[in-house]
Amino acid sequence: MSSTWGQAFRVTTWGESHGGGVGVVIDGCPARVPLSLDKIQAALDRRRPGQSEITTPRKEGDRAEILSGVFEDRTTGTPISILVRNEDHRSEAYNEMAGKYRPSHADYTYDAKYGFRDWRGGGRSSARETIGRVAAASVAQQVLEVLAPGLDVIAWVKSVKHLNASVDPLTVSRETIEGNIVRTGDPALVEPMTDLIKEMRSTGNSVGGVVECVVRNCPAGLGEPVFDKIDADLAKAMLSLPATKAFEIGSGFAGTMLTGLEHNDPFRMGTDGQVHTTKNDSGGVQGGMSNGEPILFRVAFKPVATVMHAQDTVTSAPHTDTTLKGRGRHDPCVLPRAVPIVEAMTWLVILDHVLRQRGQNG
Amino acid sequence: MSSTWGQAFRVTTWGESHGGGVGVVIDGCPARVPLSLDKIQAALDRRRPGQSEITTPRKEGDRAEILSGVFEDRTTGTPISILVRNEDHRSEAYNEMAGKYRPSHADYTYDAKYGFRDWRGGGRSSARETIGRVAAASVAQQVLEVLAPGLDVIAWVKSVKHLNASVDPLTVSRETIEGNIVRTGDPALVEPMTDLIKEMRSTGNSVGGVVECVVRNCPAGLGEPVFDKIDADLAKAMLSLPATKAFEIGSGFAGTMLTGLEHNDPFRMGTDGQVHTTKNDSGGVQGGMSNGEPILFRVAFKPVATVMHAQDTVTSAPHTDTTLKGRGRHDPCVLPRAVPIVEAMTWLVILDHVLRQRGQNG
Amino acid sequence: MSSTWGQAFRVTTWGESHGGGVGVVIDGCPARVPLSLDKIQAALDRRRPGQSEITTPRKEGDRAEILSGVFEDRTTGTPISILVRNEDHRSEAYNEMAGKYRPSHADYTYDAKYGFRDWRGGGRSSARETIGRVAAASVAQQVLEVLAPGLDVIAWVKSVKHLNASVDPLTVSRETIEGNIVRTGDPALVEPMTDLIKEMRSTGNSVGGVVECVVRNCPAGLGEPVFDKIDADLAKAMLSLPATKAFEIGSGFAGTMLTGLEHNDPFRMGTDGQVHTTKNDSGGVQGGMSNGEPILFRVAFKPVATVMHAQDTVTSAPHTDTTLKGRGRHDPCVLPRAVPIVEAMTWLVILDHVLRQRGQNG
Amino acid sequence: MSSTWGQAFRVTTWGESHGGGVGVVIDGCPARVPLSLDKIQAALDRRRPGQSEITTPRKEGDRAEILSGVFEDRTTGTPISILVRNEDHRSEAYNEMAGKYRPSHADYTYDAKYGFRDWRGGGRSSARETIGRVAAASVAQQVLEVLAPGLDVIAWVKSVKHLNASVDPLTVSRETIEGNIVRTGDPALVEPMTDLIKEMRSTGNSVGGVVECVVRNCPAGLGEPVFDKIDADLAKAMLSLPATKAFEIGSGFAGTMLTGLEHNDPFRMGTDGQVHTTKNDSGGVQGGMSNGEPILFRVAFKPVATVMHAQDTVTSAPHTDTTLKGRGRHDPCVLPRAVPIVEAMTWLVILDHVLRQRGQNG
Repeated sequence: MSSTWGQAFRVTTWGESHGGGVGVVIDGCPARVPLSLDKIQAALDRRRPGQSEITTPRKEGDRAEILSGVFEDRTTGTPISILVRNEDHRSEAYNEMAGKYRPSHADYTYDAKYGFRDWRGGGRSSARETIGRVAAASVAQQVLEVLAPGLDVIAWVKSVKHLNASVDPLTVSRETIEGNIVRTGDPALVEPMTDLIKEMRSTGNSVGGVVECVVRNCPAGLGEPVFDKIDADLAKAMLSLPATKAFEIGSGFAGTMLTGLEHNDPFRMGTDGQVHTTKNDSGGVQGGMSNGEPILFRVAFKPVATVMHAQDTVTSAPHTDTTLKGRGRHDPCVLPRAVPIVEAMTWLVILDHVLRQRGQNG
Repeated sequence: MSSTWGQAFRVTTWGESHGGGVGVVIDGCPARVPLSLDKIQAALDRRRPGQSEITTPRKEGDRAEILSGVFEDRTTGTPISILVRNEDHRSEAYNEMAGKYRPSHADYTYDAKYGFRDWRGGGRSSARETIGRVAAASVAQQVLEVLAPGLDVIAWVKSVKHLNASVDPLTVSRETIEGNIVRTGDPALVEPMTDLIKEMRSTGNSVGGVVECVVRNCPAGLGEPVFDKIDADLAKAMLSLPATKAFEIGSGFAGTMLTGLEHNDPFRMGTDGQVHTTKNDSGGVQGGMSNGEPILFRVAFKPVATVMHAQDTVTSAPHTDTTLKGRGRHDPCVLPRAVPIVEAMTWLVILDHVLRQRGQNG
Repeated sequence: MSSTWGQAFRVTTWGESHGGGVGVVIDGCPARVPLSLDKIQAALDRRRPGQSEITTPRKEGDRAEILSGVFEDRTTGTPISILVRNEDHRSEAYNEMAGKYRPSHADYTYDAKYGFRDWRGGGRSSARETIGRVAAASVAQQVLEVLAPGLDVIAWVKSVKHLNASVDPLTVSRETIEGNIVRTGDPALVEPMTDLIKEMRSTGNSVGGVVECVVRNCPAGLGEPVFDKIDADLAKAMLSLPATKAFEIGSGFAGTMLTGLEHNDPFRMGTDGQVHTTKNDSGGVQGGMSNGEPILFRVAFKPVATVMHAQDTVTSAPHTDTTLKGRGRHDPCVLPRAVPIVEAMTWLVILDHVLRQRGQNG
Repeated sequence: MSSTWGQAFRVTTWGESHGGGVGVVIDGCPARVPLSLDKIQAALDRRRPGQSEITTPRKEGDRAEILSGVFEDRTTGTPISILVRNEDHRSEAYNEMAGKYRPSHADYTYDAKYGFRDWRGGGRSSARETIGRVAAASVAQQVLEVLAPGLDVIAWVKSVKHLNASVDPLTVSRETIEGNIVRTGDPALVEPMTDLIKEMRSTGNSVGGVVECVVRNCPAGLGEPVFDKIDADLAKAMLSLPATKAFEIGSGFAGTMLTGLEHNDPFRMGTDGQVHTTKNDSGGVQGGMSNGEPILFRVAFKPVATVMHAQDTVTSAPHTDTTLKGRGRHDPCVLPRAVPIVEAMTWLVILDHVLRQRGQNG
């Protein structure tokens, strides 16, 4: 269903930008797992607006409250409900949007689908919805620390517009990425990327780019043949994030420039006694199942749709041509805050498949 | 679940390359829809091996039999079961694969997941599995002819390796595409693409490329906010196809090179009295829901993994280094036969969302 | 999944007796339906403890808060999250239960399943969980007032122990039922039933009985063949309620005493020009689908497990024989408060099938 | 969905009485389980018509063919497709039913739902649909022989009309039950029950009764809190069978005649060092989860709707009053053949919950 992710570790998010709050209910979580609210809060803080000079100045405390499913700091196996109240919403900044569709936003399509929309702050299409995903992903991460020790998910900003970072997915550290406000893995590009984003803000424009993500130490055999391939689920997970337009795993589109002889990943026994591939154009997935190599993929985020210029659009009802100029507080570039939500969806995909694999095959 | 697609129009495929057959069960199909077995058969014939000199010479009649759910040539609303028997399988060509993993195939990952695999012809990972998808998609198409007249899905080969077709998605015709064995939409590239594929075959090598697909006359409001965005479901659908590595919609990765001002699609009232965008970098989808413009996306297919050269690999149990040379009958390039399966998954996604939208919102 | 009901109108409840609260998330609700929080509150008030002298004195305001999915008093089509805070919980009354299993409660089975349990007030197995169901059902009822005007669901206490009410399901009014604290439909039995329940309370004992429920003016054709028959879903819905042990529809167990000639319901054209049956041993359902006659079923609730006497039991870890005497505030008879939860689950089943039928068959 | 059962071990049945056949697809089956087609066939033979003088003389070989998911006599973990062709169908016996609704059959409700029906032999509502369930259940049973050795499911005819068998659920043997054509567990009632059924046949009438079923050696902790209680799933499973009208577990309806003090099942440590209850009014389930005691339940089957007498009914389109006399080959009593299908649904419920429990809680 629309607002539920997963089959075994099921995550249902709810909430709008300017309603009573946003949150998530997690069903199917393994019992007896130590669960830290502080870790959940730290994950939300990474996603939170107002973290740096290149993100939106909207101030939200985004304090998470666990309402159920945890007893004496351990999961009980019953649904975990997490609530984050909305605080700093200024609906008046959106008054004009009540009657006009913002170009390349979801205003028109919500009306087309439901005949009606909560226009305050983008309603359900607001990126605040991802709070529920990030909170649930922190729970998933804490479960995987028990079920798959060593498994890690790390994402970084691969490119901002034409500025393309040089990053080694096998070695890049979380410290490097979190050590700069762009969250790129390439120290040499921190300043150019920051400058570009500031320039976009100062001109009322916006910019997009690519986030890259790696899953290290993923056990082989995750994912299922046919429809629920792990790369298929990752693709859906990423395209379910706001502002995404593309997904590629391993060699991706560039792989089509190779021949089969060049593209195939040879198998060799590793010094660890395990089967390995000598290169990884497969991106860690073959036939839809993980092969034990790092899972590596990229996600394209379009430039932010809200710009501070008048643009052609139409009114909501009745429809007539008009113009609309962006207002409100927005990120000129979503990428730094996209890093934690790309990681979040990845945690959710991985844990769901870990539990499914355990259920079917022990 | 692994082998089921869809929530309202539910499609469950089954079958291996060299078992008793392959097939599909469709649950949730609207009743009283005229259903033609000939149309299903024609759809399967487009996917069938042995269609031309550039596809595998494996000869399969692929005759579909409808076992249930249809009475007096109309759907009854109960499950439609369609069976295609396997015929021309030569398991002996795969004997060596019983003990060795083919590089960049799913042999190793099946063993990693299940501890066991049907190695004959790739078992469940064989492209024959897509027969069930194509048959179900023909049913979906026939349903949509009733529920959404005018809606059409057309795909074509956009590129083979570096050969990149020039195609207008708004006007390219099915006749043009079906009129050449490559199934490209650019007549000027038929010969170069054909030559390249033949060259790959003659050298025992293989090649990949990109398939592009458009949904024309799609009603606005299909797809759901949050996880089941229509582009998210399309992404999953495409990555669930064998040999796919990437998906992009609208501007895709290239869109990250634009600013927000450049990328946004302005709204204007059309001469038909409907809301339209004056360009379509959104690819017909905004906020995960269709906006009435053509839905346009691209899918990357890696070069075929089976090549007729010795490659490094390992044995299955116990694992030791070895080499393996491809045998059997294979396509040097999956793209011509990928066109109908890209269309098939698109039909399935669209109809599922049409029924879901009708259920929730009338 | 464990805590989600429905396929089209999906209801996920969460919460424990003594945690932060209880609540529900509804996904798939039709948009633009007028929604009254007062009606939801009124529904909760019917389920609330402390309503009369024969129910538990636990005082809970049970104030519902709608956190999302509603804008300008209409549903938006996005998830509706409803929260009720816990207030009057006295965990100390349960301290002894931390180390001992209450007989015929879920304490032991929770430990057997999860290796762990929130023992305060029964945790997730508390009847407070049904708050989420009742709130969601009020939403469902308000949707059905639009989609199926005239459809009504009414339940009443059919029997308390051996006291068996005489009620005509076709004519009994909500006023009659709500007009007495037992919620029976037979005025002659109000006093005897009340006396029996008071006697049980005064002796620290408890009693069970049967709730009967009718769906009037239900359209024909709801429910699906095979597994999701509407009576199968009603049976599951009722057995999912705490303390239920049996379900029967129409003639039920007694129907096995009849021959086919006696049991069959003849069809005749009604004066309204519709097909009707001249009697209703089928209980309004044939082949798992509603036939337009009243849907009539009964549900058995066992006597309340908490009694104020020492009973044999075992300790939780390590297990040894011991005894335990009930404490805390409990209903000596759940039946009066079972009436609204039986109705609630019925509303959820009916609306889910109304939306599914609209989705598949228009 | 309508034709799919289960969340982890997913069973999708398809097929009509007089179409190409009936069958089932099983998805999510654990891999590497030894699977015997002979056992599946033996299970189908128990369900098959024409087994004795008191069942329908329709002759169906009901030969099962496994089309996928099994390799070298072991499950591969991929979908198992099983096909049974229809053979001895005589549609002409149903010609009159094309235009008239059989009382207390599903003819009218199929038309009400779909506006259309396959009237031959009852179409999808035919008991032949249960072939798929029985075949899948045999697979489930073979999986449980590996995952839960010692667990067993045994059902028997508890009553035929007023003839009520005396059976000890803890000790009754499969040999006793299969040793008589009624499949009752009480040798003293074999002859009276047989005589009653023969009398019904000779007078063109029919009769119903109750099937009782026990699950022995069921591990504790199966089933999930709230909606997917194991007794709730059993209730749905049983009510999804043709001709069922009621379900009760443990004390059932009769339990409402007891007080809490009488009804509660005390816990005591057993000589096996395990927690046990000293009696079993709970029927092996507390709070929706198994407690390790035998799971015991009863299911009411109404008298067969087809009787060889003229009955009042209406024509299908346009509707007018008429009469219809039963024809064709039918069981005067479904109970002997209901025994294996009650067991079948129980196997499916149990395995699904075993896999779910393993997935969530290891």
